Amino acid sequence: MPQSPIGPELQRMIDLLAKLPGLGPRSAKRAALHLLSKREGLMRPLAFAIAEAAEKVEACTVCGNLDSINPCAVCTDETRDTSVLCVVQDVGDLWAMERAGAHRGRYHVLGGLLSPLDGIGPDDLKVGGLVERAHSDDVREVILALAATVDGQTTSHYIAEQLDASGVDVTQLSQGVPVGGELDFLDEGTIAAAMRTRRPA
Amino acid sequence: MPQSPIGPELQRMIDLLAKLPGLGPRSAKRAALHLLSKREGLMRPLAFAIAEAAEKVEACTVCGNLDSINPCAVCTDETRDTSVLCVVQDVGDLWAMERAGAHRGRYHVLGGLLSPLDGIGPDDLKVGGLVERAHSDDVREVILALAATVDGQTTSHYIAEQLDASGVDVTQLSQGVPVGGELDFLDEGTIAAAMRTRRPA
Repeated sequence: MPQSPIGPELQRMIDLLAKLPGLGPRSAKRAALHLLSKREGLMRPLAFAIAEAAEKVEACTVCGNLDSINPCAVCTDETRDTSVLCVVQDVGDLWAMERAGAHRGRYHVLGGLLSPLDGIGPDDLKVGGLVERAHSDDVREVILALAATVDGQTTSHYIAEQLDASGVDVTQLSQGVPVGGELDFLDEGTIAAAMRTRRPA
Repeated sequence: MPQSPIGPELQRMIDLLAKLPGLGPRSAKRAALHLLSKREGLMRPLAFAIAEAAEKVEACTVCGNLDSINPCAVCTDETRDTSVLCVVQDVGDLWAMERAGAHRGRYHVLGGLLSPLDGIGPDDLKVGGLVERAHSDDVREVILALAATVDGQTTSHYIAEQLDASGVDVTQLSQGVPVGGELDFLDEGTIAAAMRTRRPA
């Protein structure tokens, strides 16, 4: 076997890039060559930005969002409605909700979903903090924006139970036909759910 | 429009990650969350590896390969056949040749292909260095391993002309049916080329 034509420093960068979701070994090499061709404009700034984010970005102690200030910009945004909390699985889902622009309240990031199969129980999620916030803040409504999966449903049920004593309204995202969704391409479960929860046209 | 839920440090890292080939804005966000969830194991090492590669990796002054030593590991590998030079478009193609394990000589990285449409002429490529090497080294054969495109062919013709006076054998990769290729899915040009260059079975 001939020696690899790729030196150790370059190989190390490629190996680490290949661990990013969305990049494999082949595309990590392409990314490495692209970086080396743009050293000042991209490569050094990226190294600096990753190091700086690793240093400064942390989980908000109130809601679990990731930000370089704590409490985070969402929690300290005075224009947001503090009476509505939206519960999401992770920060990616918080960003998705914000992209949709459908929620102007605050958030609570669970950090996962209950999953007996994966050994994830209530103690692994930030449910305690949520119950506390529901009691202590001026919260009126908690919206459960969790995945429409078995784990998501189980988690929603569990949280609704835990919030029972707080007296807040607990709601969840409705299930149905996605916007732009053609029935022909939808799974039976979604169509059945959309039928069950049909409403006046 | 509400304030973005993503702080400036995080957004900056995401914007730079999104400039990598293979990552878009959406997958850059996913990559950022993945990095933040693996700060010690992946994020800080990656920042360090990119910074170190930016510092240490440079183009080999002999062949144009990228390495942290100069001349590169390929050029200084005593076990390689110094009489055969393989001409490739870029370092990615050098790596592809090495993956194939079909060349045990040295390389010459052109840095591109002639392309009148894109305004890339002979002076933009490292042809001069190649002609010099073909004359001065103990080179017997120059293999043109360039793309089977119009630009690749044009470049091969041009290089063959330039090397005429050196007296070395100039060869190029043959064109034909790719290994595992089904005729039904091949373009007409490839089939026609494979017919023209057919050989005894």
